[in-house]
Amino acid sequence: MIQKLLLLSLLCASICYSQDPLPSWNEGKAKAAILKFAEESVKKGGENYIEPSERIAVFDQDGTLWVEQPLYTQFFFAIERVKELAPLHPEWKDQEPFSSIIHKNAAELAKFSEQDIAKILAVTHAGMTVEQFHNYVQGWLQTALHPRYKKRFTDLVYQPMLEVIKLLKGRGFKTYIVSGGGQEFMRAYAEKVYDIPPENVIGTAGKVKYEVLRGGPVLMKVPEVLYIDDKTGKPEGINLIIGRRPYAAFGNSDGDQQMLEWTQAGPKLRLELLVHHDDAIREYAYDKDSKIGHFPETLMEEAEKRGWIVVSMKTDWKILFPWQKQSDKQE
Amino acid sequence: MIQKLLLLSLLCASICYSQDPLPSWNEGKAKAAILKFAEESVKKGGENYIEPSERIAVFDQDGTLWVEQPLYTQFFFAIERVKELAPLHPEWKDQEPFSSIIHKNAAELAKFSEQDIAKILAVTHAGMTVEQFHNYVQGWLQTALHPRYKKRFTDLVYQPMLEVIKLLKGRGFKTYIVSGGGQEFMRAYAEKVYDIPPENVIGTAGKVKYEVLRGGPVLMKVPEVLYIDDKTGKPEGINLIIGRRPYAAFGNSDGDQQMLEWTQAGPKLRLELLVHHDDAIREYAYDKDSKIGHFPETLMEEAEKRGWIVVSMKTDWKILFPWQKQSDKQE
Repeated sequence: MIQKLLLLSLLCASICYSQDPLPSWNEGKAKAAILKFAEESVKKGGENYIEPSERIAVFDQDGTLWVEQPLYTQFFFAIERVKELAPLHPEWKDQEPFSSIIHKNAAELAKFSEQDIAKILAVTHAGMTVEQFHNYVQGWLQTALHPRYKKRFTDLVYQPMLEVIKLLKGRGFKTYIVSGGGQEFMRAYAEKVYDIPPENVIGTAGKVKYEVLRGGPVLMKVPEVLYIDDKTGKPEGINLIIGRRPYAAFGNSDGDQQMLEWTQAGPKLRLELLVHHDDAIREYAYDKDSKIGHFPETLMEEAEKRGWIVVSMKTDWKILFPWQKQSDKQE
Repeated sequence: MIQKLLLLSLLCASICYSQDPLPSWNEGKAKAAILKFAEESVKKGGENYIEPSERIAVFDQDGTLWVEQPLYTQFFFAIERVKELAPLHPEWKDQEPFSSIIHKNAAELAKFSEQDIAKILAVTHAGMTVEQFHNYVQGWLQTALHPRYKKRFTDLVYQPMLEVIKLLKGRGFKTYIVSGGGQEFMRAYAEKVYDIPPENVIGTAGKVKYEVLRGGPVLMKVPEVLYIDDKTGKPEGINLIIGRRPYAAFGNSDGDQQMLEWTQAGPKLRLELLVHHDDAIREYAYDKDSKIGHFPETLMEEAEKRGWIVVSMKTDWKILFPWQKQSDKQE
């Protein structure tokens, strides 16, 4: 019996090993670099072996783990909230950024930065507990649909990146989200959608205030931003929450440049990767002229100079979303 | 051969199970409560079973994990730094808190709050990278001695609490430090001393600034406090860094009251514990009249009312420090 079990486990190990951990990636430089990094990080005695406690990988969210066009998901969410509250705030009619939202000025909306959104969220969600805010976000995500795909926003996560998260977790990496988006917003769904627990979610953080109410203690959201987790704020946020330098960093815009720089500045083999949105058919094609997911030519030059992997969404990814897996198999 | 191995592992399991995980604790209410909590948290199907991802335990540091009298360790450290820098700052002579430090006014020093110390540290350690600061702290800890015990400060951690950390880690708990002390100060030694990694250290945080220097990118300490992790700041800091409510909380003063309240306000069996310093012979006896580790009568009443465990250092702990283990065995 024990011998049969042993045989079975040997068989299983051999099958698991032979399976491609990145089935949604086409063969190419990007896939090869990810696999090499994952393999060498656990090769004991190798020059690129990483101690288990040091295995940290960080992922930007918007445009790296899920769709960020035509607007950040969190912005669609904030718009709903501003509209809800507008009758109580007549002054918003002439006051930006609220005025653009109320008047549905789409061109203006697309110009808002993640910081603008963080401020809108901070203001519009104050006076709510953290728990109430999570429930509110979860409720909204249940029903809100993306205007192009007519799918829930949480269905618009990139299957190839989910495979990278799973691969690295399987190699003992702690995987963190490091996003300009709202920390509490992401915590409302990150564990379910990405298998990333709340303590591994780093984002722009609003202040909270501990209060003891009649029903017991609560953490109340306050209309102030504690810190902005974007650009230089990303390595700063990584230091605040993790206190270690990552070995792998994934992004898609100039908001991620400092995070990749910081990652690469450590010793040993590290992995830095930028998703390039060049797929107008299946998703969106945008880079240097887009406010959202801004990928200027200087960033492309930087990537070439430093050996950062630039992933072409068009040619490196077989499918984009988890729900395309079935149809892919049928082809 | 396999059967022998199986037998061996069964034997080992039985031996391990019969060993007391808290050998430095005398039998009593406190030890029984800790053991009950640890046991029930992993009992599948039991009403107090905790999902592995939810197993979070938080520990105050000063006075809970190590000695905090006659002054916080971090304050001894800050004093050294102020003295070093004093020649460059003639204005400090008449300016508190620097004046008291320079003039060795011990009575005044003991009155400083953790916030005062955080500010002193923020000011005196700016212009240094996070890495340089860690090296500086580590160097100081190598040579600085506690005035009474003539031991290194890191030798003055409480063996009974190290056993609690180990017990809970063994049950799958993520153990965090949640202290009013400086986050980066603690990160310099927490992994070595408590087996608590940097990402699990929450403390009062100074701001850092990401800068690219000629030698590469650095995180530079800036003379500003980002947040104070004390009193209401403890549940707020727990929310910021962990984003989950703990199941167990350990403290020793009114700086920990809100953290214990917040912990207890969740469902299921939770553990709240306060170390009471009542051992003038082996350590220090202090509570309501001490600025450091202030334990007012109202906190004692609160503990009784809410069923929080109050640990008597005098009667609950067989030994205090790891280096007393050997002599204990010889008795």
